[in-house]
Amino acid sequence: MMTGSTSLACAQRSLRDTTQEYPLLPALTEGCPATSDSAMQFPLEIAFDYDQIDRQIFEQDPLPGLDRWAPLLPPLAPGLSMAEGGTPLLPNESLAKWAGVTTPFLLKDETRNPTWSHKDRLNLCTMSAAIASGAPGVVVSSSGNHGAAAAAYAARAGLPCIVLTTDDAPPAVQSFLLAYGAAAVGVPAAARWPLLREIVARLGYHPVSNQTPFHTGHPYGPKGYKTIAYELYLQLGDRVPAAVLIPTGYGELLFGVWKGFRELQQLGVTAVTPRMIACEPAARAPLSRALAEGRFAVEVAPEHTDASGIAVRVNGYRGVLAVQESDGTALRIPDAALVEAQGAMARTGLWTELSGAAGLAGLRQMTATGETFDGPVVAVVTSSGFKDVGVGNHTVPMTAPEWPAVAEVLRSRYGISA
Amino acid sequence: MMTGSTSLACAQRSLRDTTQEYPLLPALTEGCPATSDSAMQFPLEIAFDYDQIDRQIFEQDPLPGLDRWAPLLPPLAPGLSMAEGGTPLLPNESLAKWAGVTTPFLLKDETRNPTWSHKDRLNLCTMSAAIASGAPGVVVSSSGNHGAAAAAYAARAGLPCIVLTTDDAPPAVQSFLLAYGAAAVGVPAAARWPLLREIVARLGYHPVSNQTPFHTGHPYGPKGYKTIAYELYLQLGDRVPAAVLIPTGYGELLFGVWKGFRELQQLGVTAVTPRMIACEPAARAPLSRALAEGRFAVEVAPEHTDASGIAVRVNGYRGVLAVQESDGTALRIPDAALVEAQGAMARTGLWTELSGAAGLAGLRQMTATGETFDGPVVAVVTSSGFKDVGVGNHTVPMTAPEWPAVAEVLRSRYGISA
Repeated sequence: MMTGSTSLACAQRSLRDTTQEYPLLPALTEGCPATSDSAMQFPLEIAFDYDQIDRQIFEQDPLPGLDRWAPLLPPLAPGLSMAEGGTPLLPNESLAKWAGVTTPFLLKDETRNPTWSHKDRLNLCTMSAAIASGAPGVVVSSSGNHGAAAAAYAARAGLPCIVLTTDDAPPAVQSFLLAYGAAAVGVPAAARWPLLREIVARLGYHPVSNQTPFHTGHPYGPKGYKTIAYELYLQLGDRVPAAVLIPTGYGELLFGVWKGFRELQQLGVTAVTPRMIACEPAARAPLSRALAEGRFAVEVAPEHTDASGIAVRVNGYRGVLAVQESDGTALRIPDAALVEAQGAMARTGLWTELSGAAGLAGLRQMTATGETFDGPVVAVVTSSGFKDVGVGNHTVPMTAPEWPAVAEVLRSRYGISA
Repeated sequence: MMTGSTSLACAQRSLRDTTQEYPLLPALTEGCPATSDSAMQFPLEIAFDYDQIDRQIFEQDPLPGLDRWAPLLPPLAPGLSMAEGGTPLLPNESLAKWAGVTTPFLLKDETRNPTWSHKDRLNLCTMSAAIASGAPGVVVSSSGNHGAAAAAYAARAGLPCIVLTTDDAPPAVQSFLLAYGAAAVGVPAAARWPLLREIVARLGYHPVSNQTPFHTGHPYGPKGYKTIAYELYLQLGDRVPAAVLIPTGYGELLFGVWKGFRELQQLGVTAVTPRMIACEPAARAPLSRALAEGRFAVEVAPEHTDASGIAVRVNGYRGVLAVQESDGTALRIPDAALVEAQGAMARTGLWTELSGAAGLAGLRQMTATGETFDGPVVAVVTSSGFKDVGVGNHTVPMTAPEWPAVAEVLRSRYGISA
């Protein structure tokens, strides 16, 4: 059941001071000009005319295609959607046991999107803004999911796409970007942000990556993630989870999902909202530190983590707001715990990128400190294992096919009684 | 709406002589003993008690989870399903134009499955047979989608899985297999089949790959593909396509989808059935030759093709039957045409493995000879681009980030006016 195909978005609004309003276009991709200064930058978000919402929209089946949520999204470019979302919600009893949780545990499998990550939901919205703005192309800084999704939607829109990758981008992701015809340029990490700004200035390309010292990002992007909240509500049988665990880098996913739940409450669809649990790599974890220090945002040292999808040096205001408003928390997850969680998930048939295991790892960490939940708990799995560094470099030892040699490999390497 | 969770499968039956019946277990994984001889081997298929079907099953939404089709599938192991299927059907006007077809053209995107290929539908069924048979493990011969899906479902079932890969298996796929904990053993191609038989004989592992000179495969496997036909019927608004184009190796997918449509007709759900179009790599194409020569199966020389997912040396009886019964045809697609179709699809946002572009390439080939269609045409896209040889080996040239150098790369390599 489709219930209206016209966006009810009406303005951009400062997330820090909601009296500061701007028209929907142009998308303000450098944060809110009124509330930001050199010390701190605040993002904009999109305001909607909620009085016009037909609540029947929350009585459909959770099928793919974000255009089914058009009234609650920024204006979408016609024909751009390619059946994002509608991703399965997978109950997993064995992982519930592994994580020590006694209420139902479910994985929201975002690997089932058009480019196999959650970022498709964001890029549908941001590419629509790029098209509406008449930009001659888009530019992103990414060595992973975001770059691939941007490349795919740009290809679909017929716009050139420049992806600034780091010089150690995962090999499988490099193939991925090139397949969509993106202009992939590998540069040292520190050079990416100045170069992004230079491309915006020189070529007039629409930026779909952050441009401020503290993260503000694209105002349209997190709106795409609201649909995860709507789908969870439908998939759980018209209820919301007790908690949602989110792999967290800049916090756009965290905030977007939270915004969706807050809307469900504002619209009177649900009485309660879930706790939002931000799961950051322990080596960085700027959001955890900002919250602990009572600050809007902090910068941290670029300590190493293999969780490339969520390895960031600064947080943004969105994450702080999502955790505080939802009575949530931010967790610091060591890489070793991510590896364990990734392995546990693979043993139940789901191969996630390392970052995508952060939710499960975080849940186990919470229950270990005695935390309990008053209802189902959901972890969002952001992307497939194909996106990790090292994937595509591995080689399996090749052996002669005579039985004694094969039996020896099966025994010694894989523990199979042969 | 779920309409019954008990399988109505009642017997294994020879595909060549339907009076030859066997109990459902053990699964006969070496073809029909009564109708096969050294010159030709015929597969078994599964008979169902169609009188017991509640036709309301065809009134649900096409959501993921093959257990929703349980009455029409072999007995499924409880808890094994992980939301296979329910994959999007994507209308694509620009590819319709590219392929020269005047009726609607749609892609059935099987990359949205749990291991990102159609093979999950098959492995849900075959792993259920392995579990029911009490086998201590499973063994498959595959360097791609099938091996990965088998490894995932085996992991979920808690069974060891041996995957015999070729020594040139795609690097990204090798990482994939190892992630699920499969025992991946790379051996020369010619040694794989004898070794598979040896593992079955020595270890009692359940084989989920063919064991006969001409392909017979697992009797349960193609039944999983029937669900694609059911979903297409629902997704097209209670109608069937005029034609369905299928990337074709051994023809299990081709036959399984066909069987689903034939059932819809037998059950009185639809009056007509689509033409089944087998799309084979031109370098091999045993089904095309078997059909041309009026034979059940032929062996061809192992000429090179990059379409590794459908590069086979023999066909099987299932493919012959599907093409003949459906008034279909088999097409020989040159690799160059596959590359062109793969590129055309990527330009609309979908990165498929080379084999997965065979349907689109085949459609273009058909229209070029004046073929027209009396309704919507569907191409099944089998798997993502991550599965191809070479993916994960690619490196992007790294450049210094000074503008003149960057502008030169954008201009010379990507054609961007910078």
